Amino acid sequence: MHNFVMQMGLIYLFTGNGKGKTTSALGTAIRALGYGKKVAVIQFMKGWATGEKRFFKAHGHEFYQFGRKEFVDFKNPSEEDKKLAEDGLKFAKEKLKERPFLIVLDELNVAIAANLVTIKEVLGLLNSIPEETNVIITGRYAKKELIDRADLVTDMKEIKHPFQKGKSAVKGLDF
Amino acid sequence: MHNFVMQMGLIYLFTGNGKGKTTSALGTAIRALGYGKKVAVIQFMKGWATGEKRFFKAHGHEFYQFGRKEFVDFKNPSEEDKKLAEDGLKFAKEKLKERPFLIVLDELNVAIAANLVTIKEVLGLLNSIPEETNVIITGRYAKKELIDRADLVTDMKEIKHPFQKGKSAVKGLDF
Repeated sequence: MHNFVMQMGLIYLFTGNGKGKTTSALGTAIRALGYGKKVAVIQFMKGWATGEKRFFKAHGHEFYQFGRKEFVDFKNPSEEDKKLAEDGLKFAKEKLKERPFLIVLDELNVAIAANLVTIKEVLGLLNSIPEETNVIITGRYAKKELIDRADLVTDMKEIKHPFQKGKSAVKGLDF
Repeated sequence: MHNFVMQMGLIYLFTGNGKGKTTSALGTAIRALGYGKKVAVIQFMKGWATGEKRFFKAHGHEFYQFGRKEFVDFKNPSEEDKKLAEDGLKFAKEKLKERPFLIVLDELNVAIAANLVTIKEVLGLLNSIPEETNVIITGRYAKKELIDRADLVTDMKEIKHPFQKGKSAVKGLDF
């Protein structure tokens, strides 16, 4: 009896405190789309208009948000925040049945850290991935369990950021 | 007499040994394109078909390559490699006259490290940026002069990578 893993798809984890996590997931999605592959981007904790949302929708690519227009209060997330994140996970589970080449779970690390969903639920989701599907999970505060589970992990480390100098986020670059 | 910098656009630098530099630049480009902004992506040292090239061209977005189909021999780059990189810099300088919102200079750090172009030429180019233009420079081996000059620097640090286990690059994820 062989003890090998059937899943062929890869799990990529983009974490760290620097800029580049969500954008890297989006850029990877663009690569896959360039080859005509099926891609679904699911954003957790974000319900606001972003350049990427506008772009994906305008071009007819799959893009879904499960968050409110406001930021989540980390120390005291609302029931609505939890319900939205749970709905996002359920939606991802359904979406996996369509066997996409790539599914992006943007900010899922943060949703776990904010206790909107549990690491156990996320590991359960990862166990249901079809073998042809690759997954990208982004966000700060990646749990050790996910780092262990992932095939690729990049720590996006902030060396310098305009926010440090009190500059605001720039439309078209930061959102 | 005030000693202030007129340039309002930002310089982003994505460096480090981990995955996410080019893809983050591409994802940021998608954000800007989502808001209908003018964007040009210029890739140095890459002349091969990539998902991003196919995607940008298929959607009529500006995407240019200045490289050969083969990898550059770092220790012994050819005259053609140098000429292509120089052409890329010249092209970027012309493109800046169109005052794009964002210009991506993909792998330019590596072109400098491989001595295809000089840091002096690149700093000269940065001094000619219109004030409404933001620049993203990617690639390993970022020079200290560029780190000092940039407004935002992320070090994409490899924690884990399938290549470590001898796995090949995946079409649609890695190129």
